[in-house]
Amino acid sequence: MSEKFSQQKDYMQLALAEAEKAAAAGEVPVGAVLVAPDGTVLAALGNAMRRAHDATAHAEMQVIRAACAALNNERLTGCDLYVTLEPCPMCAGAIAEARIRRVYYGVADMKGGAVDHGVALFAQPSCHHRPEVYGGLRESDCAALLTDFFRLRRNGEIN
Amino acid sequence: MSEKFSQQKDYMQLALAEAEKAAAAGEVPVGAVLVAPDGTVLAALGNAMRRAHDATAHAEMQVIRAACAALNNERLTGCDLYVTLEPCPMCAGAIAEARIRRVYYGVADMKGGAVDHGVALFAQPSCHHRPEVYGGLRESDCAALLTDFFRLRRNGEIN
Repeated sequence: MSEKFSQQKDYMQLALAEAEKAAAAGEVPVGAVLVAPDGTVLAALGNAMRRAHDATAHAEMQVIRAACAALNNERLTGCDLYVTLEPCPMCAGAIAEARIRRVYYGVADMKGGAVDHGVALFAQPSCHHRPEVYGGLRESDCAALLTDFFRLRRNGEIN
Repeated sequence: MSEKFSQQKDYMQLALAEAEKAAAAGEVPVGAVLVAPDGTVLAALGNAMRRAHDATAHAEMQVIRAACAALNNERLTGCDLYVTLEPCPMCAGAIAEARIRRVYYGVADMKGGAVDHGVALFAQPSCHHRPEVYGGLRESDCAALLTDFFRLRRNGEIN
């Protein structure tokens, strides 16, 4: 397909690499990347709730905070987020607060997601900013990471 | 009323003081306090989005992160949150992630709130943790701070 689509897969590949690093550190493997309007990667990070002892340290929150710091701006207008798993309500709220332009996610989260499932935050009349959303990018790779992680945890091979 | 209720007003007074400090720094005046099960104040902070250049730095997020750091724990089980304004979707999500026991808020936010308005997150079947919620504590004082702030900003006395 287009060069643009190939770029999008590259960004998701970077998010997948962060998810793998998170898994190696005992975190649920979710990774995210924040990309500036000119295509520059502003931040690439994974879940860090256990490592950082921080309930809010989901991958999306991590890259939003890092990108705000990099740009010295509380708004990420025109920036795009890539994340391996559909964002939860906290992260969807942060995406709206940061005025992110587009959200690309890998695998849907029927139980915990808040973009295309659950409260479907961006479709609510109360939502003050609606990013464009594209789900299913590198879906099977993103899903496999999570499936493997939870299988190993169930088997007691990781805790 | 009971000594307990008086304590709750004291915690909200502390949240109000943080909201006032935020206003003095040019932030929308919202303050929050995180209280441990034994009544110890773990964190008291206000909105810092502009000061910190961080879209996620709402008062509630600030105290949740600080309290997690203080306890070295990603869960704030048994802890209570006091906040001058009804939490937004991001903060309501973070409250559920952190497993906070009770949320006391001052003034309802019909437009931006996500506890008793908007997506009413804790009432959703997809919500995995439901704190007890008590709205209207020191309501008029919490509301007055916000009303004054937005009046001054409309008049160009602050920017």
